[in-house]
Amino acid sequence: MGDIAFQLDPRLAGDTHTVGDLAVSRLLLMDDARWPWLILVPRRAGLRELIELERDTQHALLEEINACAHVLHALHKPDKLNIAALGNVVPQLHVHVIARHVGDAAWPRPVWGVGAREAYAPAARDERLAALRTALRCTPA
Amino acid sequence: MGDIAFQLDPRLAGDTHTVGDLAVSRLLLMDDARWPWLILVPRRAGLRELIELERDTQHALLEEINACAHVLHALHKPDKLNIAALGNVVPQLHVHVIARHVGDAAWPRPVWGVGAREAYAPAARDERLAALRTALRCTPA
Repeated sequence: MGDIAFQLDPRLAGDTHTVGDLAVSRLLLMDDARWPWLILVPRRAGLRELIELERDTQHALLEEINACAHVLHALHKPDKLNIAALGNVVPQLHVHVIARHVGDAAWPRPVWGVGAREAYAPAARDERLAALRTALRCTPA
Repeated sequence: MGDIAFQLDPRLAGDTHTVGDLAVSRLLLMDDARWPWLILVPRRAGLRELIELERDTQHALLEEINACAHVLHALHKPDKLNIAALGNVVPQLHVHVIARHVGDAAWPRPVWGVGAREAYAPAARDERLAALRTALRCTPA
């Protein structure tokens, strides 16, 4: 369902690792070990707002959001999930799905703009990506 | 589609004005004149996470999010819409739909926790509520 012309915003690319592709979205892992944090980016060139998507694609994206939320729930037992499409800094439509725990590095505030990103150590990153790829059955991006 | 046992969280009630009821959600206007800011609260007792809703209800909620986003777009011509379900402070599931403008009181940061809420003047509040009720065809809550 992706566009040939789709290109991931370079700021998103620079802050994340690629998990893989779902039917609608490129799935990214935010390279910040402080929170289990996934980002879904529908592979549609020029897309900025959820309401620009037709209903069937919105429903398919919602399925992917659900799948990510269920996987984060199973892997991390969060106290709360945060799901958000903001895009004030990077206007390319992207949906955050974040596992939050009481007492985490931003609790109870939102995570955006809090402190400095803490990149994963390579082994932890590889383990996390492998677990996500298996759980979500991603295809390589 | 609402539960008889549904009760709006008192913190949400205290910070908002009630627009009315949609099929799934109680629709609220955040009493903060700095941003056009709607909140949808599915009328389901004990609900905390999007993934607790069955698929049909999620789709119906998504329709309501779309309707709110379209109305905010038509009324306020935002540069960006912010759509988010966070719930770290108020765990009752609620979805923010916020019209953002370049240079607004938090731009480009998220709005949560920024400065102090600025309540609407009564006339502006009544005008805003009337416009929303007409555009969204709410029933009285």
